[in-house]
Amino acid sequence: MRFAVLGTGTVGRTIAAKLASLGHEVTIGTRDPQATLARTEPDGMGTPPFAQWQQGHPQIRLATFADSAASADAVVNATSGGGALDALRLAGADNLAGKLLLDIANPLDFSQGMPPSLNPVNTDSLGEQIQRTFPDAKVVKTLNTMSAHIMVDPSQVPGEHDVFLSGDDADAKKAATDLLVSIGWPAGSVLDLGDITTARGTEMLLPIWLRLYGALGHADFNFHVQSARTTA
Amino acid sequence: MRFAVLGTGTVGRTIAAKLASLGHEVTIGTRDPQATLARTEPDGMGTPPFAQWQQGHPQIRLATFADSAASADAVVNATSGGGALDALRLAGADNLAGKLLLDIANPLDFSQGMPPSLNPVNTDSLGEQIQRTFPDAKVVKTLNTMSAHIMVDPSQVPGEHDVFLSGDDADAKKAATDLLVSIGWPAGSVLDLGDITTARGTEMLLPIWLRLYGALGHADFNFHVQSARTTA
Repeated sequence: MRFAVLGTGTVGRTIAAKLASLGHEVTIGTRDPQATLARTEPDGMGTPPFAQWQQGHPQIRLATFADSAASADAVVNATSGGGALDALRLAGADNLAGKLLLDIANPLDFSQGMPPSLNPVNTDSLGEQIQRTFPDAKVVKTLNTMSAHIMVDPSQVPGEHDVFLSGDDADAKKAATDLLVSIGWPAGSVLDLGDITTARGTEMLLPIWLRLYGALGHADFNFHVQSARTTA
Repeated sequence: MRFAVLGTGTVGRTIAAKLASLGHEVTIGTRDPQATLARTEPDGMGTPPFAQWQQGHPQIRLATFADSAASADAVVNATSGGGALDALRLAGADNLAGKLLLDIANPLDFSQGMPPSLNPVNTDSLGEQIQRTFPDAKVVKTLNTMSAHIMVDPSQVPGEHDVFLSGDDADAKKAATDLLVSIGWPAGSVLDLGDITTARGTEMLLPIWLRLYGALGHADFNFHVQSARTTA
């Protein structure tokens, strides 16, 4: 498949590299490719400049949000959550229509102090905002409840642990499940919570994720729903 | 120990019965004991009237919020979250001062439709509200992330699963941990998230808990943090 991964940060790079390693054709979308490539210094988090990363992944193209989405069969939103709607508008509603849109971002709000809070939250979610704004896209919220290195290699956490799905389109959730399984997620670890409003539940896992990161001192963990009954 | 359990619903009854079975002296607190005892019909959820339940638990007293808290060494907030601050004010700040106050409630808000949302949320929590309102109480948020029957019998869910602690007072969290272990929680399953602000994280688990309840079709589950590293 041809994927557009929107976002040049750690999450976007990690998912793009994994998709490319599985044989998919991957383009990373950014607002201004020339500006992205012109950076020569690590960012504030110590992430190396994109051009340096790309040298190790020459098969992955960099393009504008619109160009990457136009040529893709499926789109991954790996932006920082606060910039997601703007990035998707630049990608273009026509370029998203009818396509699987995997939303793996979280709407972290750094304006209320640290650790970040969420916006939207509680009675809305980023997943729902995206689906409302682009009604012809097939939005599936997933993978937003863990660190990027675990998204693409669940075996880094031993034992059973889970990845959630939220979305309105059953076929899109089936396609997302198949993709997750191809990445290495056991089929039984993919938990379909229901429609896109259930994205509120997974986005609202972020606050405890952030506290667990603080309490454990590392990000090598994931959530598991331990159930007393086997479900079909 | 002498416990006051505030709240006559399923959660209050379940925790009160467990504490009594462990040899503790338990009083359930309610706004108006005569009114509570006068009810003869199940409530809207099908919960039997309190008087009927109490016939099976004759060692558990019923008293006003204030009387129950006054005679207790430790207090459990098992009210419906929306009524918690009112109930605790009736219990009386003097009757809470210096005592362990286990907050096991969630601030569910039914005014925004079903499933319920939370209020407060995101930049505040019920646990923090209680600690701010009663600064001399030693508030520990715990047990609020699972169904009542699992709170008091974690073996009902097989395998590893966890209970979280949030609070500002280290001694109170140690006392809460000892109590949880006496109930049957393995010491390694008690995860201390940090100060009382981390209650935002556990209260914000409720939205996904509610969706999992819908997706699984039962409440016999609990969360487990699967970690790649062993922590001390």
